[in-house]
Amino acid sequence: MKITAEEIFHALEAVRRASPVVHNITNYVVMNNTANALLAVGASPVMAHAEEEMEDMVNIASALVINIGTLSESWVRSMLIAVRQAAKKGIPVVLDPVGVGATVYRTKTARALMDAQPPSILRGNASEIMALYDDKSKTKGVDSSASSDRALDIARYLSVAYHCVVCVSGATDYIVEGERIAKIKNGHPLMARVTGLGCTASALCGAFAAVEKSAFTATVNAMAVMGIAGELAATVAAGPGSLQVSFLDCLHRLSEKDIAGLLKAEG
Amino acid sequence: MKITAEEIFHALEAVRRASPVVHNITNYVVMNNTANALLAVGASPVMAHAEEEMEDMVNIASALVINIGTLSESWVRSMLIAVRQAAKKGIPVVLDPVGVGATVYRTKTARALMDAQPPSILRGNASEIMALYDDKSKTKGVDSSASSDRALDIARYLSVAYHCVVCVSGATDYIVEGERIAKIKNGHPLMARVTGLGCTASALCGAFAAVEKSAFTATVNAMAVMGIAGELAATVAAGPGSLQVSFLDCLHRLSEKDIAGLLKAEG
Amino acid sequence: MKITAEEIFHALEAVRRASPVVHNITNYVVMNNTANALLAVGASPVMAHAEEEMEDMVNIASALVINIGTLSESWVRSMLIAVRQAAKKGIPVVLDPVGVGATVYRTKTARALMDAQPPSILRGNASEIMALYDDKSKTKGVDSSASSDRALDIARYLSVAYHCVVCVSGATDYIVEGERIAKIKNGHPLMARVTGLGCTASALCGAFAAVEKSAFTATVNAMAVMGIAGELAATVAAGPGSLQVSFLDCLHRLSEKDIAGLLKAEG
Repeated sequence: MKITAEEIFHALEAVRRASPVVHNITNYVVMNNTANALLAVGASPVMAHAEEEMEDMVNIASALVINIGTLSESWVRSMLIAVRQAAKKGIPVVLDPVGVGATVYRTKTARALMDAQPPSILRGNASEIMALYDDKSKTKGVDSSASSDRALDIARYLSVAYHCVVCVSGATDYIVEGERIAKIKNGHPLMARVTGLGCTASALCGAFAAVEKSAFTATVNAMAVMGIAGELAATVAAGPGSLQVSFLDCLHRLSEKDIAGLLKAEG
Repeated sequence: MKITAEEIFHALEAVRRASPVVHNITNYVVMNNTANALLAVGASPVMAHAEEEMEDMVNIASALVINIGTLSESWVRSMLIAVRQAAKKGIPVVLDPVGVGATVYRTKTARALMDAQPPSILRGNASEIMALYDDKSKTKGVDSSASSDRALDIARYLSVAYHCVVCVSGATDYIVEGERIAKIKNGHPLMARVTGLGCTASALCGAFAAVEKSAFTATVNAMAVMGIAGELAATVAAGPGSLQVSFLDCLHRLSEKDIAGLLKAEG
Repeated sequence: MKITAEEIFHALEAVRRASPVVHNITNYVVMNNTANALLAVGASPVMAHAEEEMEDMVNIASALVINIGTLSESWVRSMLIAVRQAAKKGIPVVLDPVGVGATVYRTKTARALMDAQPPSILRGNASEIMALYDDKSKTKGVDSSASSDRALDIARYLSVAYHCVVCVSGATDYIVEGERIAKIKNGHPLMARVTGLGCTASALCGAFAAVEKSAFTATVNAMAVMGIAGELAATVAAGPGSLQVSFLDCLHRLSEKDIAGLLKAEG
């Protein structure tokens, strides 16, 4: 697969045109930014978590994004209802296993979600992806802190075992589907000083998967757009506060020329 | 009724002087922005939802704002306690039926809230207002997507049936009380790309209703201030991220001259 | 104790170097900003509230921050588990009794938390600190509104009774430990028009306490850094919206020269 700016921009235009409803069950910390990033990319965000309305809400959505950043029992029940309804309806599901490995509860919940209904796309940092597989991998809070090689081996394993695309994000984002791999080297170190940009990346995967049959291609597109908007934002930002703001501005205005000028991808 | 910049500014000054406590039971996505918008307009926001403290909190408030954006059973119970206590205490209540029509649960909850205690002000977009009345009206997530004429007929019906002011917001905001109608044509298209500015509008209705006996006048004032601050913000914003930030700056500094220069209202 | 820019900057560098995990059980309104402020100061924020993972999460943290801004029963149970586990593990605990005095439930909860496990640092505005002690002190929502002298007497009393540092924040921040007192006169009036900067101050106390044995010194450092970053931000902000953004930028870049140029402290 050759990754081109033209195809990424076409996908972005498809999101802007279709404005797909993306249903998010996500954590309290990032809800506002996630909704704003989905609006900025051209999608229609919905945030809802009540068990009573899960099936109805999934039924009007074109993609579902599950993020376990701030868990509790009733939310986990809603997540399970939502992923099953998404499978029944045939819409893509993105799982972001935030902080897996930090606590037993988080690890058990993420694995239960994977087993109940494998996602179309699993996106996490290296330590989260490793902790999903291996109890000996330790997560330091929600930060990335693990060796890439082992993370890639585990990503390949999980991709095959669960028939899903696995994205290991970091300075380089690896998108893995079985033996296939793509690398996106966009982004900026200051992005790690803004809370929840990983969660935003997962939400963008949902938006792109809503308009593209291949979950692999959708993830590549989402991670490239994410990284390029972040790089553009970093050129005007005075620090992490203004980066968060500029990121939304840049995402909203992103042009084919922006993508062509900055894209660093290996297919 | 003639709508003048002078009267709107006097109302704004009254909010700034009184700094009324506005109690919000609102959704997780917008809490931070809603609190900041209330501070920027000069009010004192309180966000609280525990059943155990609902009556106490309503008792220190000058207005109550109920927003059903992210529902759950215990929050609905608290909303019911709060609207009843507000009625007992005689403070104005604003209801924002976010996403009504998207799910049966949302529609039932909004109707139950209306029936338990009709609000002073009901504010939603056209599709939400229609879905409150009519099960055949469909909401696409939380976006506006309906014909204005039918929405206005339903607004008039709801206003009479529930003895409340109904605001149908959109490119033009319609404020309806029985046969009375006012139109505010301020605002900017980019505002629709920022999550929760509708929720902010509802919160501002609460702030203005706290210092003004006529719910109709309070709603006109709030929607004009909202739209004008948004227009001013759009002149300096590079996109939806910076619009959200500038909106608060402009709201905080809004002058009579700003209002006089931009007000587009029909009484 | 002589408070010097050099020592404050050394403490800031220690936070940046150690990047301590700070576990927050805080309110929905401020979660995003609190996490971003902790990242900007160099710490590693974790937000989690499920009872099932409280002990595990506290076990990977170097400080715990409890903030009662938006309460509910299950969160209070988690707070109690967390403060007990923090005591067992010997990590510092910061308590921010947001809105105490506004409702009976809030006052009872804050006192129950104090009694279950006295915090290392108690930080609130004057009315909150007084309401913790005295049922006749009234809080107007979550704003500060009380006479400083009485607040300081109560701060001294609480400091002795609970063996903790008490910070009474306001235009002047008072840091009290028994008969010891320090005053920080940094900050800017516009900071009061941004929601949750008090909550941010409490979180920074947690970050500094994670790298400094003396809770008194840690609180002095945190409040000075907070106020100075706020002053710097106010010099470039056009209002409360941009202040919130610039505050994070300034906190991220804060230099020894910035601190030396602005510090207004009495040891």
